[in-house]
Amino acid sequence: MNDETRTRTALLGSSSDAATRVFTTILTRSPISRIDVARLTGLSQAAVTKAVTPLVAAGLLNDSLDPTLTGLPGRPVSPVAVVPDAVVALGVKVNADEIIGVATDLTTRIITSDRLRLTSHDPAAVIDAIVEICGRLRSGLGGLRSRLACIGVAVSGDVDMESGVVRDSALMDWRGVELGDALAERLGQRIVVENDVRALTIGEHWFGVGLGTSSFAIVTIGRGIGSGLHLNGEVVEGAYGVAGEIGHLPLTSPDRICACGRRGCVEAVAATAAIVATVSAGLGREVSIEEAVELARDGDPVAAQAFAEAGTVIGAAIASLVNMVGPELVIIGGEGVVNFDLIEEPLRRSYAEHVFASADRCRIVVRPHTFEDWARGAAATAIRSLVV
Amino acid sequence: MNDETRTRTALLGSSSDAATRVFTTILTRSPISRIDVARLTGLSQAAVTKAVTPLVAAGLLNDSLDPTLTGLPGRPVSPVAVVPDAVVALGVKVNADEIIGVATDLTTRIITSDRLRLTSHDPAAVIDAIVEICGRLRSGLGGLRSRLACIGVAVSGDVDMESGVVRDSALMDWRGVELGDALAERLGQRIVVENDVRALTIGEHWFGVGLGTSSFAIVTIGRGIGSGLHLNGEVVEGAYGVAGEIGHLPLTSPDRICACGRRGCVEAVAATAAIVATVSAGLGREVSIEEAVELARDGDPVAAQAFAEAGTVIGAAIASLVNMVGPELVIIGGEGVVNFDLIEEPLRRSYAEHVFASADRCRIVVRPHTFEDWARGAAATAIRSLVV
Repeated sequence: MNDETRTRTALLGSSSDAATRVFTTILTRSPISRIDVARLTGLSQAAVTKAVTPLVAAGLLNDSLDPTLTGLPGRPVSPVAVVPDAVVALGVKVNADEIIGVATDLTTRIITSDRLRLTSHDPAAVIDAIVEICGRLRSGLGGLRSRLACIGVAVSGDVDMESGVVRDSALMDWRGVELGDALAERLGQRIVVENDVRALTIGEHWFGVGLGTSSFAIVTIGRGIGSGLHLNGEVVEGAYGVAGEIGHLPLTSPDRICACGRRGCVEAVAATAAIVATVSAGLGREVSIEEAVELARDGDPVAAQAFAEAGTVIGAAIASLVNMVGPELVIIGGEGVVNFDLIEEPLRRSYAEHVFASADRCRIVVRPHTFEDWARGAAATAIRSLVV
Repeated sequence: MNDETRTRTALLGSSSDAATRVFTTILTRSPISRIDVARLTGLSQAAVTKAVTPLVAAGLLNDSLDPTLTGLPGRPVSPVAVVPDAVVALGVKVNADEIIGVATDLTTRIITSDRLRLTSHDPAAVIDAIVEICGRLRSGLGGLRSRLACIGVAVSGDVDMESGVVRDSALMDWRGVELGDALAERLGQRIVVENDVRALTIGEHWFGVGLGTSSFAIVTIGRGIGSGLHLNGEVVEGAYGVAGEIGHLPLTSPDRICACGRRGCVEAVAATAAIVATVSAGLGREVSIEEAVELARDGDPVAAQAFAEAGTVIGAAIASLVNMVGPELVIIGGEGVVNFDLIEEPLRRSYAEHVFASADRCRIVVRPHTFEDWARGAAATAIRSLVV
């Protein structure tokens, strides 16, 4: 980080509440007129100008735009825009078998990306891998390297963003791993560790399909079943770092034991490993998820039934989420959506059976997020931490 | 409403976003120093003063307090307080067999209260009863009558607060009842109709145990099982008016059919009517809830089992809520808490079995709300509607 970048991050971190709201409004809607910033923040135009001035001076915002070139309707008075590459960030998504990293600008546009196989879940090995991928991404930044201000890391499970501790990750078999401190020491950068689904939700809210909706949820299916909630304009973090854990709602038989040790969890039926176990048990031999998918597509009743059962319980979980928080929109993502054809019909039937009253007006959309999208969410989380 | 009251409500309704935040901060924490108002709202002291001045002129706030008499620590600079009886409100809670009404000041302190038996669920009869109880409450206001600015009505079910329509209330057997319009015409007052549990949550947030917590939920048990969620400083209303419906999470066997027509709902086992039906079926004769309670306390295995089953499913519902939104505090209320001894042990066991990771740090407290507390929530909802 050079002095210029240091000045910019210090300014963002020390802003008043009003200045923060002004900056985030411009960041997520850039370019925008000052009048609209005032309207959206509820501040006076004088207060908006007061907030904008030091941000322009530090090179984070640009207020010398040609109004006719902003793409804004009419001829907006004093348009203001974010300077996207004023600061850059890295985002890293930790999967069970792979690490995916991206370098992005302030608006989470991807500048470069990379992947690295993971051969061990030992925390030290994973930390080494994260350090390595961050090194590669930094090299890929070229002249922007000195503007690197923060690194976001997204991990599945119960993550305490404040302390950077992964308290409990079934996927990685981690308990109390002090990932944030270890990475900060190795990388000498500001590190933000966040639950992966919440990171994806922050990314979708700031720069994705969630922008402009009053409330939405992301439901992820695949190795784990999780959700990220965005209500009344904010991500639901959970008072103790846990929220959106629809994979651990007790919606199925207590005979089904989850990888987490609890009984009747959604994941005990609908996680990839549970589907594989059910098909393997039914056929009397070990199958892979790829084979289970192929069998189900070919009409094998055991495999088809396992996916149908998964769809039914995921539908009940989404109905539970909708009955509980009443979102406008549910986005289904996660690597499991590539097999959505095998679960869609029972999922939608079960959802319709359990959704309550006018909550059923919630839109359900399927969006195949790439792992780079998840890593982008991690970068968005890091950028957000500079500002709020 | 006299001219003075009209001026006050018009001022509250037309305030800027900043003025609204200033007023609600003072309303819920009165008396408070201007410095603290600035800190809590993130506004400058000049902006606070600008917002306070017209509210003082209209008689809604008082800034001529003797600083030594405010009860605030030290000698606060420019303390400011709400004038509680500047405006008064009525709150009405509609139960299946009774209507409960309160008249309150701006801080929802109860000035007078009344109850009226309900002999029919016909909307016209219920509207007549609400009109009658409002008339009695107005009489009880004496000289404050001209300060009546709004009436809140709380009804169980899917309520659209915007339009005042009760879209679906299983308790009242109502579909699409235009309660707000009908009452506004009969009473000539500003009417706010809200879901009863959300109204209670608004009351607890503004003036109760929820003040100062970052997130909490109220779970109500009894005739219905519901919840009100308060996250990131705001009530979760649901994009389409439905939220907190934990009574309709599919957490029990599909063989259990709910009064709402769906299968496996929490209410199908744990609502008062479901407990009564289970005990009656087990004993081969009709019992009342009072008799079922007595039998269970005397150790009758059929009755004890019915309550235990209710406790188990309510525990799973609370764990689901906590896993989903991660609150700091869950308040269990509702008329069913008078029999909490019969359900507590299985409830806590089932909750502990299903709550996920550090979400279990959430505090669970039992608070016996009276029906007047619910009506107070309705009044709080009406007062809030004047302001936000």
